[in-house]
Amino acid sequence: MSINKERFMELIKQHEYNVIKKELQNINEIDIATYLEELPTEEMIIVFRMLSKDQACDVFAELEQSIQHKMIETMSDQELCAVVNDLAIDDAVDMLEEMPAFLVQRVLKAADSDMRDTINQFMNYPEDSAGSVMTPEFVGLKESMTVKEAIEHIRKNGEDSETIYTCYVMDATRILYGIVSVRTLLVSKDDTLISEIMEKNVISVRTDEDQEAAANLLKKYDFMSLPVVDKENRLVGIITYDDAMDVIEEETTEDIERMGAVEPSEKPYLKTSVVELSKNRIVWLLVLMITDMISGGILSKWQDAFTAMPVLIAFIPMLTDTGGNAGGQSSTLIIRSLAMGEITPADWFKVWWKEARVAAICGFILALFDVIRIWIMYPGQGLVAITIGIALFCTVIMAKSVGGILPLIASKLKLDPAVMASPVITTIVDAGSLLIYLNTASILLHI
Amino acid sequence: MSINKERFMELIKQHEYNVIKKELQNINEIDIATYLEELPTEEMIIVFRMLSKDQACDVFAELEQSIQHKMIETMSDQELCAVVNDLAIDDAVDMLEEMPAFLVQRVLKAADSDMRDTINQFMNYPEDSAGSVMTPEFVGLKESMTVKEAIEHIRKNGEDSETIYTCYVMDATRILYGIVSVRTLLVSKDDTLISEIMEKNVISVRTDEDQEAAANLLKKYDFMSLPVVDKENRLVGIITYDDAMDVIEEETTEDIERMGAVEPSEKPYLKTSVVELSKNRIVWLLVLMITDMISGGILSKWQDAFTAMPVLIAFIPMLTDTGGNAGGQSSTLIIRSLAMGEITPADWFKVWWKEARVAAICGFILALFDVIRIWIMYPGQGLVAITIGIALFCTVIMAKSVGGILPLIASKLKLDPAVMASPVITTIVDAGSLLIYLNTASILLHI
Repeated sequence: MSINKERFMELIKQHEYNVIKKELQNINEIDIATYLEELPTEEMIIVFRMLSKDQACDVFAELEQSIQHKMIETMSDQELCAVVNDLAIDDAVDMLEEMPAFLVQRVLKAADSDMRDTINQFMNYPEDSAGSVMTPEFVGLKESMTVKEAIEHIRKNGEDSETIYTCYVMDATRILYGIVSVRTLLVSKDDTLISEIMEKNVISVRTDEDQEAAANLLKKYDFMSLPVVDKENRLVGIITYDDAMDVIEEETTEDIERMGAVEPSEKPYLKTSVVELSKNRIVWLLVLMITDMISGGILSKWQDAFTAMPVLIAFIPMLTDTGGNAGGQSSTLIIRSLAMGEITPADWFKVWWKEARVAAICGFILALFDVIRIWIMYPGQGLVAITIGIALFCTVIMAKSVGGILPLIASKLKLDPAVMASPVITTIVDAGSLLIYLNTASILLHI
Repeated sequence: MSINKERFMELIKQHEYNVIKKELQNINEIDIATYLEELPTEEMIIVFRMLSKDQACDVFAELEQSIQHKMIETMSDQELCAVVNDLAIDDAVDMLEEMPAFLVQRVLKAADSDMRDTINQFMNYPEDSAGSVMTPEFVGLKESMTVKEAIEHIRKNGEDSETIYTCYVMDATRILYGIVSVRTLLVSKDDTLISEIMEKNVISVRTDEDQEAAANLLKKYDFMSLPVVDKENRLVGIITYDDAMDVIEEETTEDIERMGAVEPSEKPYLKTSVVELSKNRIVWLLVLMITDMISGGILSKWQDAFTAMPVLIAFIPMLTDTGGNAGGQSSTLIIRSLAMGEITPADWFKVWWKEARVAAICGFILALFDVIRIWIMYPGQGLVAITIGIALFCTVIMAKSVGGILPLIASKLKLDPAVMASPVITTIVDAGSLLIYLNTASILLHI
């Protein structure tokens, strides 16, 4: 059993470094990284130096970037060499991308020349492309090998690959011909040729394709890794399932933040500064506030109606909010369905027809509820009740149509559908529902 | 190269079944399932019968449940036997859970007795528990085996396991002692003992733990599979990374739907009936509409103020919407951070202090903008401009505090924080912002 965080912190407090050194071997590297991140820099360095060479590298890769930077500043050139050259390329590139230039220089100097070349190559792939999340460390086999030779090859060279479980069959020019899993190798006879058992129908992505598309492909086919090829169809790297899971999570967080009218940020909430959080929010708040001037303008124009019948003011929040909620529900479902690839902009009519019918059912129930409630709560105001009922019904139909269709239009225009979520829909629907309300009132109540 | 969907559909139309039969061998099973789902039942059955036994089973597992039901109804007992007994247990259980009783009976009758026992056992695990998503098909090794023996064991028995890449070391009573990856086996010497190379610090979950917690654990440690043990610490199954990815996606979709005030549904949007979609939405719409009566009540009480100064009406949507948006931004970030385990309810003070400062910055900018705008657009109404400015600033502070804290309270009370998203926050904040607005106006404008 490994010790838990409380016990670890206790040992640190009591300066029981001998015990810690012994216990470290039993703790998972990912946990060690979490513990280290909570220590003051000095203790962090002491504990880090106690790790074995292999563990040090794994722990380092898991640390947060700001802490990686701190560590590098305190490391000797020799220590840096050891850590940098053992890092997986994708982890090294991730780290360097966010690093101040003087540290990047130190790191590149510490890297041996092969590592430096690969790092430089990988840093040229555009952000969020398949190339930027792949790793070049995979097992390559030849068609002419037998199963026995292939297994021997893996046993000799497997140590340096990110995953050995899917092997890639290439020729001398690195053109990808097929894939074969270690499972297939193990359950096949020793003298079988790789060309006989390899899967020739290889699904791959190009380096410049979107990382999200690559991750979704891997997820769809339940692959353990996905090959990434260049324009000449030469294999340059693979994306592994754990990196794909990270990509999907990152993209989902971005969607959720956009849906909440916040500009996405990659940093965790508690580590983001107040100024940065404000910057990520103020633009949307301003844009939406300015758009709300339309609703304000509508209300100004109808000012006299409210002076004549002040009771009408009380129903404004109920009408606009219900419209916003009804439209937000539709846009939420459509945005998520688009992200999961369940619908495309071409389905717009199906979506609208579904939303219209759902709106009719929901709108009718809500309107009926309100007509009865107002009839009871405002005796003698039957016509007001009917006005509200009709306005509410029409508002829900309008809101759900807008909420259902706008994300599809955004997607068709290659914009992120997630911006067409509740906040934007609410602002648009507000103006619409006020127009419906006031025009219905003007006809029925002659104001 | 395998043919694409258009070509496949064309061949179907031309009844080129011989060509189809040949091409089917080159198409990925997951794609075949997608193609089949778009065919009329009759053609679907014809194509399905062309598949080899192995392919048929894989394709069947990927079909949508309603189509699986249709297929089973048309299969002979013999065909059913072949498919059912080759299904992975977790796929079989998934299918049976949603199936009408008379079909469940047919399937269980077709299963051989081992399969039937396991299915019955697995169907007893509570919904959304780790037990409900695990598979019992894994490779078990003994401590006393050598690497050579272990590899031979895998080569002989690996065919039936969901994954062979992480092997579980148990004793005769199935108590879990360690894990060893095929990679470690392959890079170790033949005569090494498993006990020397196995990882003893095994992270596992109990059958009754939440599936989401299990999936997050697997994600955190980048495991390929996670062992699931019973109360006596005996290994009963494993959760593989692809099932964990599905769990995470499913739970995220649930969160997003709740955040959009929709009751979650497992069916894809286009396959959900209008009545079901309405049912999933109407409750929240009603609850929020009824809560909006509070805002309506506040406005009713202050009716005379608006009659005296009708210009005040025009600012209602801007104030309440900005409050709702500001609060929604905060709740969105907090809900997502909670879901990703970045913050806990214990961080409430840190969160509130951050939100208060962000609100002060955003509120000040918005208020300044509005004071200037109103000053220009409504000449001579300087005091109104200042009223709006102060109300807006206070509204943003209040909204972001409510939006930041409510999800944490929900989480502390073991409720789903996702319900405390924009729609609920907007409704609560509406009432608050109206109170702030009208009280500020009453003090400054003496209405």
